[in-house]
Amino acid sequence: MLATGTWVEMDPLCPFSLANLPLAIATTPGQSEPHVVSAIGPYIIELPALIDSLGEVDYADLVRYGDRRRLAAALSAGSLLDLAALGQDVPRRLRSALQELLSDATSFPHVLRDNPAARARVLAPAEQARFRMPVAVADYTDFYAGYHHARAVGAMFRGADKALMPNYLHLPVGYHGRSSSVVLSGTPVRRPVGQILAAGPTPVTAPTRKLDLELELGCIIARGSGLGERVPVDEAGAYILGYVLLNDWSARDVQKWEYVPLGPFNGKNFATTISPWVVTPDALEPYRTRPSVELGVEPQPYLKQAREDRVFDIQLEVDLTTAEGVTVPISRTSSRHLVWSFDQMVAHHTLGGCPLRGGDLLGSGTISGPGGPCEAGCLLEATLDGSKPIKVQSDGKTVTRSYLEDGDTITVRGFCGPEGARVGFGECAGRIEAARWP
Amino acid sequence: MLATGTWVEMDPLCPFSLANLPLAIATTPGQSEPHVVSAIGPYIIELPALIDSLGEVDYADLVRYGDRRRLAAALSAGSLLDLAALGQDVPRRLRSALQELLSDATSFPHVLRDNPAARARVLAPAEQARFRMPVAVADYTDFYAGYHHARAVGAMFRGADKALMPNYLHLPVGYHGRSSSVVLSGTPVRRPVGQILAAGPTPVTAPTRKLDLELELGCIIARGSGLGERVPVDEAGAYILGYVLLNDWSARDVQKWEYVPLGPFNGKNFATTISPWVVTPDALEPYRTRPSVELGVEPQPYLKQAREDRVFDIQLEVDLTTAEGVTVPISRTSSRHLVWSFDQMVAHHTLGGCPLRGGDLLGSGTISGPGGPCEAGCLLEATLDGSKPIKVQSDGKTVTRSYLEDGDTITVRGFCGPEGARVGFGECAGRIEAARWP
Repeated sequence: MLATGTWVEMDPLCPFSLANLPLAIATTPGQSEPHVVSAIGPYIIELPALIDSLGEVDYADLVRYGDRRRLAAALSAGSLLDLAALGQDVPRRLRSALQELLSDATSFPHVLRDNPAARARVLAPAEQARFRMPVAVADYTDFYAGYHHARAVGAMFRGADKALMPNYLHLPVGYHGRSSSVVLSGTPVRRPVGQILAAGPTPVTAPTRKLDLELELGCIIARGSGLGERVPVDEAGAYILGYVLLNDWSARDVQKWEYVPLGPFNGKNFATTISPWVVTPDALEPYRTRPSVELGVEPQPYLKQAREDRVFDIQLEVDLTTAEGVTVPISRTSSRHLVWSFDQMVAHHTLGGCPLRGGDLLGSGTISGPGGPCEAGCLLEATLDGSKPIKVQSDGKTVTRSYLEDGDTITVRGFCGPEGARVGFGECAGRIEAARWP
Repeated sequence: MLATGTWVEMDPLCPFSLANLPLAIATTPGQSEPHVVSAIGPYIIELPALIDSLGEVDYADLVRYGDRRRLAAALSAGSLLDLAALGQDVPRRLRSALQELLSDATSFPHVLRDNPAARARVLAPAEQARFRMPVAVADYTDFYAGYHHARAVGAMFRGADKALMPNYLHLPVGYHGRSSSVVLSGTPVRRPVGQILAAGPTPVTAPTRKLDLELELGCIIARGSGLGERVPVDEAGAYILGYVLLNDWSARDVQKWEYVPLGPFNGKNFATTISPWVVTPDALEPYRTRPSVELGVEPQPYLKQAREDRVFDIQLEVDLTTAEGVTVPISRTSSRHLVWSFDQMVAHHTLGGCPLRGGDLLGSGTISGPGGPCEAGCLLEATLDGSKPIKVQSDGKTVTRSYLEDGDTITVRGFCGPEGARVGFGECAGRIEAARWP
């Protein structure tokens, strides 16, 4: 086993290394009300129990946040926004405290490492956790910052020479999504019914025949900005709580018929799945990089970000598991193919004075690599709208798909870092259920 | 003075007749916490104080809702959703009770009419009320159901023969709006900054030069539907709390540059103003009518509404008041020009299983009449995108506008019914403040 730096035994491929320590909301046998947890290896970390178990001196030395009762209340809340409301430094201090406590060379062995009773209270097997939404989603906005996706889809519909609309080079194109249908990983996705134009000029109302996934990264906003207030691009980081995996399920036939002139509606608003784990900006900081593509035009001043390493190099994987239980990989790519950063999205979103609120969710847009179908973040792109089905093999079995079938499960994973020090999101998964129709 | 049917002295043109009795959330000198109020003539009705003042027998005879403590709590809440949660019949009973108490021939004269002390507690001069948002807006969806507007704007951009997109005849076109910037009447509207394509292929970032209003009717949803659940069109009424006036401010130059292919974003999300008064479906029931236009195609089965009088004939007025205080009328029209009802919008919105939530706001889309600029619900349409400014006279002064100027106030009003029995919304107003720029 590779060195992981922690006394907690773990698989070096586990996404929850000592370098990560993400946040989630869960219920557990030890605490049946929703509360804040973190993760290390195969365990979740019961944060309220941890704070409770610390003596005054250890608390002061480790956590260094004066109002212990307020912190305990925030960690016992059913949303990460209570913790975020204490200021960005508090999650940071908590993560440092956890790294200190869990490291091989901890100076506080009596708190957990050498304290079986405390360990039993604070570390619970991850499979015992029932996750909840990390925040109540306020507004959901979906951007379109995946360059290769925007280009490939544009070329399909408008030809290669007009693949990108002129505005794409100058602003992070985005639209308002539906927050009421943002659901947690594991929630079944019912195949939606919609209006579809099949043969002839008259539409039919029927279950979608073109049910698709969209591989995205999500960003959760920590706190609000005022009505009429612009957030400068280099201050946007102060508004970001963390990141999630996001699958923006889409019904392509519904979308195609409805979307002109006001944009996607029922083709998108039936479900958007996010991962329960929120990975912190601090954990992702070492994996910052420049976008894989530069747009080649001078950005408007409000979008000029000081740092060049403005996106993350997160390895992204999409697997499909059939109703029969055959699992095949259908996409492998990286979030460095985003050409606009979340900081730029925040600056653009607030340019006209639109207020952010804590709990807002920003989607990156579909992320695809430049390498063809096996790097595409959706089936629309991978199969050229179903005209060239993908065929994927695994263990001698072949799975062929134009679009998703009932019983299919889509599982998205994302991680950075070497074995033993993985910073990952865990899973963002959803299974397709048959339409209720008529 | 015309007969109004109530012992409360009032102007027969007042929108708050005995036939109306709308709901709002306000604070008053008598109750400083936000609570539910109604209105009669020049007074607001303090509903918690009224319930409190009723003896047991009067309460039972008038209100006929068993759990008095629960009702009192809902009326002392800062949102109308608490009242809605008691079931649609409870606001209905409250309205009947108020009509009984306030009518000339009341059988309960001792409660208010002949009881000066109770009158003083229950009826407060309307100018003493400070209104709050009637609900916390959950998701905001804006439709496009104003036929003449859709046709006129389509003709401007695509020519008269392609004015309506093919989908317009078959579904209530709509898009997801931004709920964080829905504000109450009276909130100043800051001129937004945005990306604008002026001369040449490169945009500039600047305050909008094409700030517009959009005259709409809004519908507030009373309660949620489940994920994956379709609301049948003839059951949609059970989900509707009531109606408000709505002005969906728009920056046309920003919108034009950004909206392809995913729809309006910063051109719309800086402010949407609603009226504080929510007019109930019961009050509007006598003013139901057929839409002024029929689309001439067989609707999809899920959109077939049993009743033909599916929209309301609400007289709508838009006035502009300049910084110098000159007020001119700029539009007069009716909500019977909507071709899709809110029931149809609800059925369409949930067709794919998108869940509604209590507090959702649906906008009708801009409402215009067929009669040219003086019936247009926005300046884009009235001035042909600024190319033919409107000139309006009042009291010997002429006001000319292509788009809105700093210091302009737009006031929307809406009402049904004859003098002495008006069912109106009061005002939905906003004043334009200069951009903060650079």
